[in-house]
Amino acid sequence: MTSPSLHTLQNLATQLRIDSIRSTSEAGSGHPTTCMSAAEIVSTLFFREMRYDPKDPKNPYNDRFVLSKGHAAPILYAAWAEAGLFPRDELLKLRTIGSDLEGHPTPRLPFVDLATGSLGQGICAAIGTTLNARRINSDYRTYVLLGDGEMAEGSVWEAANAAMYQKLDNLCAIIDVNGLGQSMPTQFDHDMDAIGARWKAFGWHTVIVDGHNVEALLAAYDEARATKERPTMILARTVKGKGVSSVEGKPGWHGKAFKKGEEADKAIAELEAHMIPGAPPPEIRKPDAHGHPPAAPPDYSKLPAPAYKLGDLVATREAWGTGLAALGTIDSRVVALDADVKNSTFSDRFEKAQPDRFYEHFIAEQVMVGAAMGLAARGAIPYPSTFACFLTRAADFIRMAGISTLNVKLTGSHAGVSIGEDGPSQMALEDLSLMRSVPECAVLYPSEAVSTERLVAEMAQRPGMAYMRTSRPKTPVLYESTERFPIGGCKVVRQSADDAAVVIGAGVTLFEALKAYDQLQAEGIAIRVIDLYSVKPVDTQSLLDAAKATGGRVITVEDHYESGGIGDAVSEAIAGGGFAVRRLAVREIPRSGQPDELLDRYGISARHVVDAVRAAVSVTR
Amino acid sequence: MTSPSLHTLQNLATQLRIDSIRSTSEAGSGHPTTCMSAAEIVSTLFFREMRYDPKDPKNPYNDRFVLSKGHAAPILYAAWAEAGLFPRDELLKLRTIGSDLEGHPTPRLPFVDLATGSLGQGICAAIGTTLNARRINSDYRTYVLLGDGEMAEGSVWEAANAAMYQKLDNLCAIIDVNGLGQSMPTQFDHDMDAIGARWKAFGWHTVIVDGHNVEALLAAYDEARATKERPTMILARTVKGKGVSSVEGKPGWHGKAFKKGEEADKAIAELEAHMIPGAPPPEIRKPDAHGHPPAAPPDYSKLPAPAYKLGDLVATREAWGTGLAALGTIDSRVVALDADVKNSTFSDRFEKAQPDRFYEHFIAEQVMVGAAMGLAARGAIPYPSTFACFLTRAADFIRMAGISTLNVKLTGSHAGVSIGEDGPSQMALEDLSLMRSVPECAVLYPSEAVSTERLVAEMAQRPGMAYMRTSRPKTPVLYESTERFPIGGCKVVRQSADDAAVVIGAGVTLFEALKAYDQLQAEGIAIRVIDLYSVKPVDTQSLLDAAKATGGRVITVEDHYESGGIGDAVSEAIAGGGFAVRRLAVREIPRSGQPDELLDRYGISARHVVDAVRAAVSVTR
Repeated sequence: MTSPSLHTLQNLATQLRIDSIRSTSEAGSGHPTTCMSAAEIVSTLFFREMRYDPKDPKNPYNDRFVLSKGHAAPILYAAWAEAGLFPRDELLKLRTIGSDLEGHPTPRLPFVDLATGSLGQGICAAIGTTLNARRINSDYRTYVLLGDGEMAEGSVWEAANAAMYQKLDNLCAIIDVNGLGQSMPTQFDHDMDAIGARWKAFGWHTVIVDGHNVEALLAAYDEARATKERPTMILARTVKGKGVSSVEGKPGWHGKAFKKGEEADKAIAELEAHMIPGAPPPEIRKPDAHGHPPAAPPDYSKLPAPAYKLGDLVATREAWGTGLAALGTIDSRVVALDADVKNSTFSDRFEKAQPDRFYEHFIAEQVMVGAAMGLAARGAIPYPSTFACFLTRAADFIRMAGISTLNVKLTGSHAGVSIGEDGPSQMALEDLSLMRSVPECAVLYPSEAVSTERLVAEMAQRPGMAYMRTSRPKTPVLYESTERFPIGGCKVVRQSADDAAVVIGAGVTLFEALKAYDQLQAEGIAIRVIDLYSVKPVDTQSLLDAAKATGGRVITVEDHYESGGIGDAVSEAIAGGGFAVRRLAVREIPRSGQPDELLDRYGISARHVVDAVRAAVSVTR
Repeated sequence: MTSPSLHTLQNLATQLRIDSIRSTSEAGSGHPTTCMSAAEIVSTLFFREMRYDPKDPKNPYNDRFVLSKGHAAPILYAAWAEAGLFPRDELLKLRTIGSDLEGHPTPRLPFVDLATGSLGQGICAAIGTTLNARRINSDYRTYVLLGDGEMAEGSVWEAANAAMYQKLDNLCAIIDVNGLGQSMPTQFDHDMDAIGARWKAFGWHTVIVDGHNVEALLAAYDEARATKERPTMILARTVKGKGVSSVEGKPGWHGKAFKKGEEADKAIAELEAHMIPGAPPPEIRKPDAHGHPPAAPPDYSKLPAPAYKLGDLVATREAWGTGLAALGTIDSRVVALDADVKNSTFSDRFEKAQPDRFYEHFIAEQVMVGAAMGLAARGAIPYPSTFACFLTRAADFIRMAGISTLNVKLTGSHAGVSIGEDGPSQMALEDLSLMRSVPECAVLYPSEAVSTERLVAEMAQRPGMAYMRTSRPKTPVLYESTERFPIGGCKVVRQSADDAAVVIGAGVTLFEALKAYDQLQAEGIAIRVIDLYSVKPVDTQSLLDAAKATGGRVITVEDHYESGGIGDAVSEAIAGGGFAVRRLAVREIPRSGQPDELLDRYGISARHVVDAVRAAVSVTR
């Protein structure tokens, strides 16, 4: 490389520093010093190493860049402005309500695949964008930039394992080792050897460079591209606040903007003095392949109907596996991920049918969901699955996937006390609440096999996040194979003109409600029974109709804690009609036992439904 | 060591295998083969290495044993039966509803410090029990047994970093490397060198041994005890199902009991043939120190009153830091943990006052909460803190802390859209929901400084889990320093005999409700305003009284998503009175902007409260 183009990259780094200071000073907040340590890394990546179309950031063959250290957003925005995607003046709208240039990157911006800003997540998502290149048979590469503080997050080491296991030589990670966290030096400060030893031990090709030396960075990228069968980690030794002598390497400058006016002007003047005259303009390398690949839309009419007879005993987790395998045959975008429980969640049915689109993540739920996020961001429809209780391990990833409005279809099996003997550590009793807290996320809870299979396919066809809760016990098939289950609907499975109350359940409790129906019928009390397979969006109109028809005697019963589940969903839906809800739910920490014993002990068996109906009916309204 | 006592330990291992098979076969479920690989590790630990009083498992000077691979519960129970804590016959009640010998260990058993069964957590908790030895100035050691599959969990590497940083030479971890996960071989199978390289790189003293050789295990424990300034990891190469030839090292036997009858009998007969006659009985070493230390109860009357004047502008996060530092001076059990945000959460005030009782965890929320669990299990009162949104990173730990009913006092700062410009990745909008899903966990959400300080102390005095949500913006002090805030209460801050509606808020929205009060007052509409500082337990009677007094016009307003927060808490509380709730809450993914702009845009500002009151009043009930 001739020295003029090195000068170009050096000048660009200086310009990115200036832009990062300017935008944060204008905003009055943000993280300029975090940007300044990464300036050469970003200038060399964006203006020499990466192949992308700066006018078409969504081109599927572009190399991907994930900013795992999301608080360095200003330099990411500056790089895209410099690349010509939008005018540099826009940068001064940083962090204002009218601009998509937010404090941390979100996919409201076309060049951001997924939101970052919760540290240790970007590298997990990068596993997904990297796997996606294989899926679409492209040679695009993924670059991910981390902060050194992120290495404290366990998810980073889950990603380290996953990348090695998958032999992701199309992944290049760079850590900006500036040695300073938010409140103090990082655990390893600038001990590059200690950091390097960790990545080597995890099987990565590891390169240690001066992160402010553009030539050294370019050589490291070359080395990464030449490395086969394993990912590369570039450890770049840097100085936080580099370029402005008053803040270089100083603690107390994390997340602090230069004060607009003299302080910022002085810093910018010092940087401007670094500009090397006469450097040629940068040239951005474009990908060889181009355009958006023509994808024949999948033909969902070819999906085989569920093959069950009424009354067949099938666990919904098993029907989920069957349905997912069937779905995979008609929609090639569908992929599955699991965390060493594929023989319990039944994702192994998909693996058997589509081994190339199944990604094992061992017991590492964070990177499983993170990889799903990256895959979804690039056009796949990922179904990550594990026991529902262990999805809480990835709660922060689920939160960020929600903010990114990604097309991730989560499944949690083994819900509730009905799993029985394994005990409370394996019982999901807060998963409906967790997932209902994600805006726009569909929350599905089928009771039997036909609705499960249908809903697996509905999830794929509805853009955005979705969650399905499946159960361990076998339950009888209730519906004909032709029945349809739109997301946002419900099924009234028992009704008459004289219903004294309505009981709303899902999963195992629907069958308790049906048992209660039979018992009450024998006493001469008719009740309406609703299968609330779609907990969110919820069928407000049907619920209001049922409440009105039954004198407002509304009872919910769920294998879930009282907080945030079916009871709360129904309550919010019908509050506008002035109706209150009597909730049967698990209200204490459960214990090991047989499923039936536990349903009864924790107040959600048929007996309790009968009692609740009798109590409701006895009150004159 | 003479060979007769080696024989004793070998025989005990065989007996533990037999007991594990017997109990799981009787139960018809469980994980015998997982126990069998660990039998020599457990026999050498319990009957030679560890110092403990088998009749007093809660003795504070006992060495601690944490079963991180919680599914090996049957061998833990067998060991304590063998140690004489309870009759061996009890083991046959495994997994039945009447027995505390659950599928996975819970602290219903006196010898279990905290529940395990979600993998990768026990080693984090062990950091806490180890730190506790320092806190109480004891030489007890902590032993933690992991499965090799657990190494996929990132939390294990958070623990690896934390133990090295804290130089925990009183911690000895053992990994039972049996090479088999649930559904397939683990990522590293029996590659002991690859596993060893990881632990060495993370700074642990690492020993690789044959896990079925009792002499080698004893030598490794000796080496661990002799190692200073760093923790020791013993990597024990083992065979899953060891001792029963039909299952040894075979996949497909995870979580599968031997069938009661011939299958189990044959396995037991094979094991019984391994018994070496003439071995002497085991001798359990007791700790030198003994008994429970006399602890003078802290004198909470000495707690200084909050030092604020009405109207002072103070952020609740800052008042929390001040209150915690004050609490630390009167209660030596109080400790604090943070994750590199101590200058934002204000836990640095505690660190300054009590540097020996402050534990920095860098950006590693899982081990921060895990260590708090271990500390709480041994008598400390830990206050772990970070941004509320990042507590979701530890959601599964919080779930398990709830199951363990531990004395952990979580704090999440920077709640809601009111943080402003940093954007959605930093805004906790689901934390109230997450914490309300933990049975028995108090959920506190003060609005101003006096109540914050008082509640910090109330948390310490109420046994069990508690969560406090604090805010970033400064808010005016509302209460006199003498005011009291019992957990489970609320404050009616505005009321009259003619209130047309009640508005319930907390945190920043309480001040929006107060602004609305003033505006409506000018229009001649009186409203009641409630400060719901205790979201759980919630003051049902006061809420019902307010609902009745205001014609059932109940409005909640919260800087939180609509799901699982204040609206749902109030709704469930007053549903019994037939009252419904109109909820003002954030209902979409927010963006960066100024706090006031965001409160207004997302429907929770004074203007929206005024509109909601007007709408409610216009409906004739």
